[in-house]
Amino acid sequence: MNPSNFLRLPGGTRDLLPEEGRMMRRLQQNAESLFERWGYSQVYTPVLEYLDNFSAESNRCFKLLDRQGEILALRPEMTAPIARMVATRLADRRFPQRYAYVGNVFRAKGGPGERREFFQAGVELIGDESAVADAEIIEIASELLSSCGMRDYQISLSHVDFLRGIVMALEIPQSARERLLSAVIRQDFVETEILMAQYGIDGKSRETINALPSMRGGVELIDEAARQVNNSISLAALDNLREVLRLLQHYGMADNVYVDFSVMRDFDYYSGMVFEGYSPHVGVPLCGGGRYDGLLASYGLDRAATGFAVSLDGLLQALDAEPEACAVDFLVIGDDVLAAISKAQELRSKGFSAQICVNESAAEESIPTRNVIRL
Amino acid sequence: MNPSNFLRLPGGTRDLLPEEGRMMRRLQQNAESLFERWGYSQVYTPVLEYLDNFSAESNRCFKLLDRQGEILALRPEMTAPIARMVATRLADRRFPQRYAYVGNVFRAKGGPGERREFFQAGVELIGDESAVADAEIIEIASELLSSCGMRDYQISLSHVDFLRGIVMALEIPQSARERLLSAVIRQDFVETEILMAQYGIDGKSRETINALPSMRGGVELIDEAARQVNNSISLAALDNLREVLRLLQHYGMADNVYVDFSVMRDFDYYSGMVFEGYSPHVGVPLCGGGRYDGLLASYGLDRAATGFAVSLDGLLQALDAEPEACAVDFLVIGDDVLAAISKAQELRSKGFSAQICVNESAAEESIPTRNVIRL
Repeated sequence: MNPSNFLRLPGGTRDLLPEEGRMMRRLQQNAESLFERWGYSQVYTPVLEYLDNFSAESNRCFKLLDRQGEILALRPEMTAPIARMVATRLADRRFPQRYAYVGNVFRAKGGPGERREFFQAGVELIGDESAVADAEIIEIASELLSSCGMRDYQISLSHVDFLRGIVMALEIPQSARERLLSAVIRQDFVETEILMAQYGIDGKSRETINALPSMRGGVELIDEAARQVNNSISLAALDNLREVLRLLQHYGMADNVYVDFSVMRDFDYYSGMVFEGYSPHVGVPLCGGGRYDGLLASYGLDRAATGFAVSLDGLLQALDAEPEACAVDFLVIGDDVLAAISKAQELRSKGFSAQICVNESAAEESIPTRNVIRL
Repeated sequence: MNPSNFLRLPGGTRDLLPEEGRMMRRLQQNAESLFERWGYSQVYTPVLEYLDNFSAESNRCFKLLDRQGEILALRPEMTAPIARMVATRLADRRFPQRYAYVGNVFRAKGGPGERREFFQAGVELIGDESAVADAEIIEIASELLSSCGMRDYQISLSHVDFLRGIVMALEIPQSARERLLSAVIRQDFVETEILMAQYGIDGKSRETINALPSMRGGVELIDEAARQVNNSISLAALDNLREVLRLLQHYGMADNVYVDFSVMRDFDYYSGMVFEGYSPHVGVPLCGGGRYDGLLASYGLDRAATGFAVSLDGLLQALDAEPEACAVDFLVIGDDVLAAISKAQELRSKGFSAQICVNESAAEESIPTRNVIRL
């Protein structure tokens, strides 16, 4: 324990100085206006929630006690809070409902170099179980990345039911199926191997489970995968993926999207298509999402849903743009303060940014400026 | 303690549903663009800081432990974090520096009906000790209120040194001065009375201290106040107020600004002019701020500073506007999903907002729309 943390910041948090702050603001505005163009309504939920609302994710939450002795949590993401909000306060409105957000989220378990506080932007489409809804979500994620200036990103697409169907078809106890599913999703290859040996899993199922992390390709991979399974759950998942891909191709996304069965999202609530967006310059996904048809039911409303989130801090890092210095359009310099005020106000009323400087010695551009007016 | 807080929100926090969310987003954008026009650079600091950085305000902070056993706090406001940031990371840039922010802040001690989490927007002008800087801050606060649609707000202006000068001139022990100052600022009239009786304070000083809460008026109040004191600290404070008022009149603010010696800001760090903005419809100040020349020194950088913050949640409440339903420009309805996608994308590329609806039965405006296109 450090005797004093005065002037320091907690690991995984940071300040955004003016140049980065300007870029963050632009990323936020860009996301907000894209979401609006797609008809998604921006909503806000509090950072502080009762831990009871995050039961499935409680071990990733920062926790604190309020004065009444209740356990509060800092929201680790926005999908669960929006599901809670829709289930409790918007259930009587027409569906489908489309919501967007930009907000800060918090993760207690940040490893070295990982952020424990960052901005997320994202959307949720609630009450539409179709592949059209899934394709819309992926297209918005893709447009968000490209509109921010990402050139060489790629979207990796998978479906949780492909693996689930294989495991559920195994003639082993249900508890063993769940342990195996969990081990494969956590990419715990040792545990996976032990379980498969223990329960005598071999043949095509074993082969496919082992091959999953390297099953990556274009639409032809779906046909190849279909030849490796014969259970109806996996086959329905592949049909769904095929339809999502067809729609994405219509959106013009053929060049950026891949089928990738190694994608395993780390929230338990996904129930269908899942995807992640990657930049070749950053090791962690820039964005991710998928279908979560069971989540709203856990808050008391049985509705299908799909959505995605992007880390704006991750995007800022991936863009790696040269930060521009912040600048004003006009710097008004003069000894007559009233005249300087009037001139600057006139410029602002025309939509320019302007600063006054009544102390000539400080006039040497405390901020870069495009024009200097000396009165 | 409630056995389960599932589906509930902690007191003092809330969701903003689409209609209010839309208004909040507009308030944020409006503040951001106003601040930019005045040449203020937007910065971001984390919500999570070490408690050590909030020593003066620690009892209003939500506190939590991180995994290393360090005590963290949720920021209760943004002025101290920005002062820390400037002192530690921006001290080598030219002054004056102008920073703006929009962010969520947290107060552990919300009383009944008080918010414990809300959005603040504000600016800080660092490295300028002039009345010109103070007038600029008040003018920006005023423009923010009027640009949001507030019509009948008023700005109440005071100066912490008027009272301080009176108390410091009393011939009583220093510790008694500090207790008296604190009692008057807390508006603890009983304690004030006891202390004045105990130390035999009478005559003009007693009269002026008792009169403070009702000393409110136009510029003429400054001359009246000047006749009641003869210490140099109070007189300098009045001269400063006179100059700030002169500049505000030049900005055209004469109708909205009052001198009001009852204004006592509840942060310890104020050192000069202080002000609050009020709406007749809301009991608590909408915005407030002032000069805090000592705060940066407490973070190791000796620079004058002045600034203000507005509660955007308070503003939302004060505006009491009829929330407009969220709407899209176009709803594209059709059985041919590829055609509907193409049409909606075409509309979006022209800057319209558009939604597709491929299920005719759901087409009855899940969201209000201005135009329906049936393919």
